[in-house]
Amino acid sequence: MTRYAAPLQDMRFVLNELAGLPAVAALPGYEEVTPDLVDAILEEAAKFAAEVLAPLNVVGDRHGSRLEGGQVVTPPGFREAYRRFVEAGWNGLDADPRFGGQGLPQLVAKPVHEMWKSANLAFSLCPMLTAAAVKAIWAHGSEAQQETFLPKLVSGEWTGTMNLTEPQAGSDLSAVRTRAIPEGGHYRLRGTKIFITWGEHDMAENIVHLVLARLPDAPEGVKGISLFIVPKFLVNRDGSLGPRNDVQAVSLEHKMGIHASPTAVMAYGENEGAVGYLVGEPHRGLEYMFTMMNHARLAVGLEGVAIAERAYQQAAAYAKERVQGRPVGRPWEERVPIIRHPDVRRMLMGMKAQVEAMRALAYFACGFLDRAERHPDPAVRREAQSLVDLLTPVVKGWCTEQSVEVASTGIQVHGGMGFIEETGACQHLRDARITPIYEGTTGIQANDLVGRKLVRDGGATATAFIRRARTDAQALERLGDAELMPVAKAVTQGLEALEEASRWLLKTYPDNPSAAAAGAVPYLKLFGLVAGGWLLAKAAGVARQRMQSPEADAAWHRAKVVTARFYADHLLPQAAGLAHTVTHGSDSVLALEETAF
Amino acid sequence: MTRYAAPLQDMRFVLNELAGLPAVAALPGYEEVTPDLVDAILEEAAKFAAEVLAPLNVVGDRHGSRLEGGQVVTPPGFREAYRRFVEAGWNGLDADPRFGGQGLPQLVAKPVHEMWKSANLAFSLCPMLTAAAVKAIWAHGSEAQQETFLPKLVSGEWTGTMNLTEPQAGSDLSAVRTRAIPEGGHYRLRGTKIFITWGEHDMAENIVHLVLARLPDAPEGVKGISLFIVPKFLVNRDGSLGPRNDVQAVSLEHKMGIHASPTAVMAYGENEGAVGYLVGEPHRGLEYMFTMMNHARLAVGLEGVAIAERAYQQAAAYAKERVQGRPVGRPWEERVPIIRHPDVRRMLMGMKAQVEAMRALAYFACGFLDRAERHPDPAVRREAQSLVDLLTPVVKGWCTEQSVEVASTGIQVHGGMGFIEETGACQHLRDARITPIYEGTTGIQANDLVGRKLVRDGGATATAFIRRARTDAQALERLGDAELMPVAKAVTQGLEALEEASRWLLKTYPDNPSAAAAGAVPYLKLFGLVAGGWLLAKAAGVARQRMQSPEADAAWHRAKVVTARFYADHLLPQAAGLAHTVTHGSDSVLALEETAF
Repeated sequence: MTRYAAPLQDMRFVLNELAGLPAVAALPGYEEVTPDLVDAILEEAAKFAAEVLAPLNVVGDRHGSRLEGGQVVTPPGFREAYRRFVEAGWNGLDADPRFGGQGLPQLVAKPVHEMWKSANLAFSLCPMLTAAAVKAIWAHGSEAQQETFLPKLVSGEWTGTMNLTEPQAGSDLSAVRTRAIPEGGHYRLRGTKIFITWGEHDMAENIVHLVLARLPDAPEGVKGISLFIVPKFLVNRDGSLGPRNDVQAVSLEHKMGIHASPTAVMAYGENEGAVGYLVGEPHRGLEYMFTMMNHARLAVGLEGVAIAERAYQQAAAYAKERVQGRPVGRPWEERVPIIRHPDVRRMLMGMKAQVEAMRALAYFACGFLDRAERHPDPAVRREAQSLVDLLTPVVKGWCTEQSVEVASTGIQVHGGMGFIEETGACQHLRDARITPIYEGTTGIQANDLVGRKLVRDGGATATAFIRRARTDAQALERLGDAELMPVAKAVTQGLEALEEASRWLLKTYPDNPSAAAAGAVPYLKLFGLVAGGWLLAKAAGVARQRMQSPEADAAWHRAKVVTARFYADHLLPQAAGLAHTVTHGSDSVLALEETAF
Repeated sequence: MTRYAAPLQDMRFVLNELAGLPAVAALPGYEEVTPDLVDAILEEAAKFAAEVLAPLNVVGDRHGSRLEGGQVVTPPGFREAYRRFVEAGWNGLDADPRFGGQGLPQLVAKPVHEMWKSANLAFSLCPMLTAAAVKAIWAHGSEAQQETFLPKLVSGEWTGTMNLTEPQAGSDLSAVRTRAIPEGGHYRLRGTKIFITWGEHDMAENIVHLVLARLPDAPEGVKGISLFIVPKFLVNRDGSLGPRNDVQAVSLEHKMGIHASPTAVMAYGENEGAVGYLVGEPHRGLEYMFTMMNHARLAVGLEGVAIAERAYQQAAAYAKERVQGRPVGRPWEERVPIIRHPDVRRMLMGMKAQVEAMRALAYFACGFLDRAERHPDPAVRREAQSLVDLLTPVVKGWCTEQSVEVASTGIQVHGGMGFIEETGACQHLRDARITPIYEGTTGIQANDLVGRKLVRDGGATATAFIRRARTDAQALERLGDAELMPVAKAVTQGLEALEEASRWLLKTYPDNPSAAAAGAVPYLKLFGLVAGGWLLAKAAGVARQRMQSPEADAAWHRAKVVTARFYADHLLPQAAGLAHTVTHGSDSVLALEETAF
């Protein structure tokens, strides 16, 4: 039942001061991306999120999507909201203008996506999956496939899905068994896919499934998986819809959260075989899927930011309103709103600091997506891509893990009312709980971070990242500001811890990958913690200077400084302990026999 | 859908080696409490928990309790299970034999209670509330009240409730408005109570409500609240049930978890006024309620242990069964159960270590309940009571906060399946989430710990506790064992952190209680973390010696050593950071204006 107001001031601040929007807007092709345009987009999106999507969040949770006679019925209001979403042109914000997209930088699209996710996570998954399908077909599809599918997917008239998981193939996609048999110019697919988000629904006239399957001559393992387009309705040459394809949602999962988002078991080819079209070359499906997946992982990281923001807004509103108890040490005074109690204040500060750190890191990473794609200098493009690659598992893993904690704290702020579904605080935790799991669990992200991103280039990208952060921390320290000094010091200590853990992993991984894997998640958490702290410190440095300008919102900028200080006092002190765990903790992880559990 | 097997081996070990069962059994009146008797009780309880209560846990979650025409209908199987529970005599395990109880030490009852809580938390709340009512009437009721109510409450034929909360009076009970007007020998009560656990149900023939209300001449605030017995059915002189009293459940809350436990809004006196009987003296109700509440707080702390244990068992079973992926660094090998993946192993070790530390601390504290009540030496009794008082908020706050984390990790171990309700992993998190809230939120516990337990005796009890732990750590260090040495060191460092934080709070509280309150929850977490680590270290020392004996279960004792080592490497390193937060974190908690949130 809570309202949502997009945190526009923080979004703009992070875009401009931390994530490099001015540099992104200066890239070729983004000439029209002026601050005014960005403002207008953000404000319109904020309105749509607050007025159309946010009120449906609780409705979606209560009703859920239901499967009735093979059809998915979405919760009341969802069809209409989706229609308006498409009509307003929100679906193709950062898509290629050749296919009807608006061609905006991805960095500009991210805060807008954050708003959809905050307002209504379950709803937002539908356009998110569509965007993934668009990216896959745009990057790897044939010209004909692009012409057939992209305009409708970019507009949102059709939606997309990703079909990877099978009962025996979850994190390990090499176990995929779905088969694709060639037949004329297309293929016939047979197999079962599970956990298919928005795999079937009533909001769009067609659904374009992207499906991993094996060709008859495919080698075993990950190198034998191909990617197919399997539309729910076949598409005639003139673009009109043809016959229904042989793909069905056979059941929906009963989940802890995101109830409005139908999670389908999809049966391919129970009759004549589902018609599918090979995307790109045979056997390269997983590689193609990973292009999408990295984008999707950043998007899920942003879900963490978004849910945490929503939970924070709800908790802060409740704490200002709920009157209970008297001020600590002054029992003779009037009863006060609970926000005046130090521990409630501590919880809210913790939520606020975590949300802002997460947003800073997520946007910072996303700013390099555009540079990696568009910068005229190939060396800059390469460097930007390495940075995105390094930070993607951190954003995904850390922001989602934190979102669970923040949403749980949000319940705690409400006291007993937090446990009552009517209040709406529980939904945020129930919704958030999937985010550290889907698109690769935190463990998978951490192994990617250590095994690929850190180790493969001998630590070069990570070292450069740490150096960059250290330079900022040193600059902050040189300001000699009494309030910022402890922040700068805490960041510097955090960076030392991160460096120590990185060094240990680089040394350990080659001979003992198990020991490195045992410390991978603590390392990922350490990375996110310190990177988030660095960006909050940087923000505090900017805010401190801004505060002196007469036209600045002094209170808001002051809050940035205090928030960084809170983070330095309450969160960054964990860094040293995490580094110790990475460097000393592997033996005890691996010492026991399985039977001891 | 998961099975539950009581962790008997750990329970016995903790009872005997850490919680002082031999010393408790030597107290006057416990002559019959032999090891064989305790074993027999634990084994019978384990059977009842596994066979009768555990299978109803999922049923209870799915069906919930429902209010139909003023009657609460419990989930299928609950009535029958409760009947068997009462018939088997489980209800009065540690109650006074004068009223039909079995007179066992509370320490012996605790593992049995843990089993009920693990098997079926929602069910277990009913006897837990009854026990609280028994304690209140036993300690403060008149002889006539005891004779009328105790035998039926002790047997479980009737159940009890605690009625404290009102819409405007949650954590702050001074705001209670329910009124009691004298009428002849009794009172007429009018008011609304909320969050009344098992306030109405169909499992027993009568329900005895203990209700806080104000007399007409009552002073404002906490000193004007009295305690009343308000039975659902009045009781005739011959003990038979008389007319229905004017108290009704008017609605049930729709909660995130513990669905089977009806959480009622109770309306007292909507017609002629509910007949109530004053317990003890007027205006002393809150004081009496606190006797119960401290017991209830330990019991809720034990709920944290219990839910975490159940979540751990479920996750471990799944991880041994689910085959996915190949061993790290050896992709040519066969696929393996996920328990062989380092990060899954890390999560399970974390769950195991936390559960064992929590159990150790909870039982350790409970061991002093009996000594505080029965020890012949009043100085020992006093000391024991101080220790219970000190540890009660720690056990309540820390074990419940950890249980949320452990249950959440349990979901994570399951990957995507963890989010599907059918699996049963979500229920543990949904159930656990109430435990840091009810019977006083973690913030309330922390303020109690700092403001009363730490500060009131000038830190004497806390200091004695730390000294006791340090002596053990030093003894462990002197063993010179290579594996135990880092454990002993980590505990010693943790104790230093705890000492530093305690000193700071003792110094700060008198002049700046707000600053102390801002650090109270981090202090409580630090206390639990270090106390748990000390007891695991102590356990490891015992286990290390046991392993050498030929009849010992070497693998089990070896696991104790490894678990302590894991805790030292993965959890105790957070101690220094928490101490820093306590001693440096208050400014940033309190610096912002409310409008900045």
